[in-house]
Amino acid sequence: MAKRNLYLKTTPVEDAFEKYKNALKAKGCLNNNTEDVKVDDSLSRITASAIFSVNNSPLFNASAMDGICVESIKTKNASEENPLILKLGKDYKIVDTGDSIKSPFDAVIMAEDVIEIDDETVRIISPVSGWENIRPIGEDIVSGEMILPSNHRITPIDIGALLAGGILSIKCLKKKTVGIIPTGDEIVPPSSNLKDGDIIDSNSYMIKALVDDAGGVGKRYDIVKDKYDDIKSALLRSIDENDITIINAGSSAGTEDYSVHVLREIGEVIVHGVTIKPGKPVILAIVNNKPVIGLPGYPLSAYITFNLFIKPLLLDGFETFETIKAISSKRIISSLKHREYVRVKIGKVDGKYIASPLNRGAASQMSMVRADGILIIPQNSEGIEAGAIADVQLLKSKDALDQTLLSIGSHDILMDIASDLMSKNYSDVSLSSTHVGSMGGLLALKRGETILAPTHLLSEETGTYNIEAIKQIFGTGQVSLIKGFDRIQGIMVKKGNPLNIKSIEDIKKFKFVNRQRGAGTRVLFDYKLKQLGINPKEINGYDKEVSTHMAVAASVAGEDIDCGLGVKSAADSMGLDFIEIGVEEYDFAVLTKNVDDDKVKKFIETIKSDELKAKLNKLGGYGYSNLGKIINIWYKNI
Amino acid sequence: MAKRNLYLKTTPVEDAFEKYKNALKAKGCLNNNTEDVKVDDSLSRITASAIFSVNNSPLFNASAMDGICVESIKTKNASEENPLILKLGKDYKIVDTGDSIKSPFDAVIMAEDVIEIDDETVRIISPVSGWENIRPIGEDIVSGEMILPSNHRITPIDIGALLAGGILSIKCLKKKTVGIIPTGDEIVPPSSNLKDGDIIDSNSYMIKALVDDAGGVGKRYDIVKDKYDDIKSALLRSIDENDITIINAGSSAGTEDYSVHVLREIGEVIVHGVTIKPGKPVILAIVNNKPVIGLPGYPLSAYITFNLFIKPLLLDGFETFETIKAISSKRIISSLKHREYVRVKIGKVDGKYIASPLNRGAASQMSMVRADGILIIPQNSEGIEAGAIADVQLLKSKDALDQTLLSIGSHDILMDIASDLMSKNYSDVSLSSTHVGSMGGLLALKRGETILAPTHLLSEETGTYNIEAIKQIFGTGQVSLIKGFDRIQGIMVKKGNPLNIKSIEDIKKFKFVNRQRGAGTRVLFDYKLKQLGINPKEINGYDKEVSTHMAVAASVAGEDIDCGLGVKSAADSMGLDFIEIGVEEYDFAVLTKNVDDDKVKKFIETIKSDELKAKLNKLGGYGYSNLGKIINIWYKNI
Repeated sequence: MAKRNLYLKTTPVEDAFEKYKNALKAKGCLNNNTEDVKVDDSLSRITASAIFSVNNSPLFNASAMDGICVESIKTKNASEENPLILKLGKDYKIVDTGDSIKSPFDAVIMAEDVIEIDDETVRIISPVSGWENIRPIGEDIVSGEMILPSNHRITPIDIGALLAGGILSIKCLKKKTVGIIPTGDEIVPPSSNLKDGDIIDSNSYMIKALVDDAGGVGKRYDIVKDKYDDIKSALLRSIDENDITIINAGSSAGTEDYSVHVLREIGEVIVHGVTIKPGKPVILAIVNNKPVIGLPGYPLSAYITFNLFIKPLLLDGFETFETIKAISSKRIISSLKHREYVRVKIGKVDGKYIASPLNRGAASQMSMVRADGILIIPQNSEGIEAGAIADVQLLKSKDALDQTLLSIGSHDILMDIASDLMSKNYSDVSLSSTHVGSMGGLLALKRGETILAPTHLLSEETGTYNIEAIKQIFGTGQVSLIKGFDRIQGIMVKKGNPLNIKSIEDIKKFKFVNRQRGAGTRVLFDYKLKQLGINPKEINGYDKEVSTHMAVAASVAGEDIDCGLGVKSAADSMGLDFIEIGVEEYDFAVLTKNVDDDKVKKFIETIKSDELKAKLNKLGGYGYSNLGKIINIWYKNI
Repeated sequence: MAKRNLYLKTTPVEDAFEKYKNALKAKGCLNNNTEDVKVDDSLSRITASAIFSVNNSPLFNASAMDGICVESIKTKNASEENPLILKLGKDYKIVDTGDSIKSPFDAVIMAEDVIEIDDETVRIISPVSGWENIRPIGEDIVSGEMILPSNHRITPIDIGALLAGGILSIKCLKKKTVGIIPTGDEIVPPSSNLKDGDIIDSNSYMIKALVDDAGGVGKRYDIVKDKYDDIKSALLRSIDENDITIINAGSSAGTEDYSVHVLREIGEVIVHGVTIKPGKPVILAIVNNKPVIGLPGYPLSAYITFNLFIKPLLLDGFETFETIKAISSKRIISSLKHREYVRVKIGKVDGKYIASPLNRGAASQMSMVRADGILIIPQNSEGIEAGAIADVQLLKSKDALDQTLLSIGSHDILMDIASDLMSKNYSDVSLSSTHVGSMGGLLALKRGETILAPTHLLSEETGTYNIEAIKQIFGTGQVSLIKGFDRIQGIMVKKGNPLNIKSIEDIKKFKFVNRQRGAGTRVLFDYKLKQLGINPKEINGYDKEVSTHMAVAASVAGEDIDCGLGVKSAADSMGLDFIEIGVEEYDFAVLTKNVDDDKVKKFIETIKSDELKAKLNKLGGYGYSNLGKIINIWYKNI
């Protein structure tokens, strides 16, 4: 009898992969090469680093409607009884959706609300507020804002958003090459003309297709006979030429023997034999710091072991997008007339999927990139109530959703950096952050829509940050505060400060852009105005709201705005000057029961990491005296 | 004001697509071109016609184990008390899995059961039956058997099975080319260097990626200004050069106006305006018998309308494979030692997914192609009970499963033909047929695992077909019989009938291959033996069972078998001679409540079609006097 190679010990499948992955990691075998890829050729590629926008989108204040642009102030007395006559050129200009709106015009009236008198004269019968029907500069994407994190598979939607963000080429992971060696004395190339005893090598072609399908580049080698030296030289050649090598046994036990002996000679066999059926005789080895895997010869065995041990090495293969049931976090009104598609973020909170609607403007490209799914409101429905269950077509895999740490609240560029670092450093967690301001975040936390709520809310009474606001919003509950960063707030002005703005008082002389209600910066601004006895009505632009620091910076960098409030990093990123007005505390609220959640722990590790601090130091404007400290805010009623 | 083009009437989305598809069909716009594709390059392509195997697999009687091959007859007295000594060369040969087994050897003893005495002598202590541990010729795929139907997307598994079946090149649908025309005065190519008023054309790149991703070939054209004549000539050029044309409006309403007017001039606008939000202003037109679609300008609108109206035209895009819960139709035993993967067919019967295990041999490639999913039995489990719920990783989309008409029962080549015709003629039904013999099919029907059960069971008492067998198996129940074909059964013998076999009596002189118990042909054979007073023990090979007509034919065509029973079409396909012994009735049992099921109706239409009859006439050996007639077999107890 031929000698049979018995497995010393078979290993359970998860243990086997874990053991192998750890061995590969220890030897640095999993490091990735990168290459530049044109955005139009980047479909399904994996980003090697985070990608930040170069353009603002819109690049200018843009009309959101077809209609006419006007000076809002002049329309304020228009009514049915007292219609207003406007003259082309002097009082209005015809604009199409997307057209640039320039000073002195500051609002758009939609075509349907305009009565045409003649080619140069129209009548309106109601006033329009400043900035109505205008998409402010940077509303969708602000230059410097992250479009995609590292380790992300590019979709068609991403290609659109990257190009809109001014990105023409990106760094991607190089596709992994996989050498595939078929072996066996009885194995012959595919043919319709066989002789007795021949077995067709169909496996190596199936495996090549599996590799290609999973985002690698499969390379088949010629069939190798069951000879020790032939197998050895075929292996060494493929290992030299590829990132990963697969040796596929003939159906006889002979080859597998040779393979495992050769692999022991030229490298290290980490696992031989796994407790699965079929597929038991798999070999997981490392040679010259490269993964070499022996797959069993039967087609089904090869297929199953490929999916278990090789597909994960080729990065996250396919994502399967399904339709799930999710709970809508808000009431969403819709018209009976049409079926409506609403982009949503999805968070898994307490085991349930919660869908929170994003910006509904069809122009917003980033809200598609940021969306986790599309919630469908049927025709003939008036919408859905908060708490109701709706169908959501996912734009991500369910697995990816389950691995997402959800953050809703205030925006700071450090959230982009943390998101990128988490994608890079952990394969099983990613950070998804939505920016609705501090107050919006705390309310979402209370409604169970988010795990983290970044916040920097000043109490006007105590002058302290966050704790009073949380008590006030939650009333009762066990909430904790993860202490974050001390952040310098100030006034952003144009480079060189041409208007010589020195303080909050100076703002009322110039054109200002405000943050939305509930934003920490808005609270700070209102607090300062109150302290100084300034009436908001004195501020030109108090009603013009944008929702991130970067959007403020982009507005100030544009033509129509002179100043705005925000953080130094945002000002720097747009090349603006910055006048410091105070230091605030930017922290993270979390329900106490979630403090020990694995994802939250990894987030805390990330914000405490030297890598993140180094990046913030480079940006400037951040301090971190209590970083990572946990304060429990529990109170009497519990 | 510029003139605005208002929609005459918006159409609900399903109606819109239906209306458009019907108009396209009426004009023959949906006809497909085909091309030859090498199997190794065919991943994700769509088959243009059914593909039939050229090889048998295995090509020869092959050892299923590593061990020794012996003559079973000589081992029959071996026992612990009376061990048998065998000599190499004379009594046994060493074989590896997959090796060819030749006469006089007819069984394999696995290595573990053989005691080695010296290099040329072994001892065995138990007998082995004929054909034990041997995979008979054609067990997996028989030459002439269908490997894949028309309109099927090629997977890595299929590539392996095609090559194993001797197929090196296949006819596929040509990929559809899609011209994409971006339009709009304000639209500029992607750049990081924009001027005020510019809007980046990111949509056409996103749409190209969506087309490529859905299996088409996207081709972008240069941006066209909002001029009637420019739009017209760009459209005519793209329509001439591509299968489908997409014109993407700028964000202003202007282009859309021009597009719809141009399309009305050069072709026919079928739908303008759909009741969805966003995405309302979509245009569905036909020009020169080609689909031309106007997509709205906003990214989200373009994305949603692409998925609704263009992706379906590019054939069934992605299939998303998920893991579902299914009810196991049988008890499946597994070892505690390993996690086991069991290939299953899945049927949706009465709204529940029923998983029926297929052949468990890891060598069977066709059982992977035929499988709908892989059922997982965890390690440390002894298996699962019939009726228990298990996780099944799908190999097909859930939609595809929902559209599958399940047939379990007797095999005839007409089931392959019907399956192919149904895939070709109906986009919403496919036929999946599993071959377990007539009795097995009726039992599956009774257990609720199948919708159809093809059967040809002779009643020994009445001499009639099927009705008595159904009454006996079901006891009570409302079962109907869809009358099928009259089929000539006979003895298959080698070409030219060298042994001059004339009748059933002659069989006992030669080497025979039998059908499995429960197969209609086996029942017929046993009936004939009884009539003739022949003891089955007199038949050499009575115990050697294969499970299809084609497998019988393949065995007879091989070296070791002289004759077998089966249908004429199978004999013809392997070039065998055929001695007619009688006509039988091959019908389809179905629960009465399912007779009016849409899928069953389409099946009945298919078997009654001239196309199917023409194919059967060409094969010969079929008659159809009562084809499609429904007989209700209901009885007293109900």
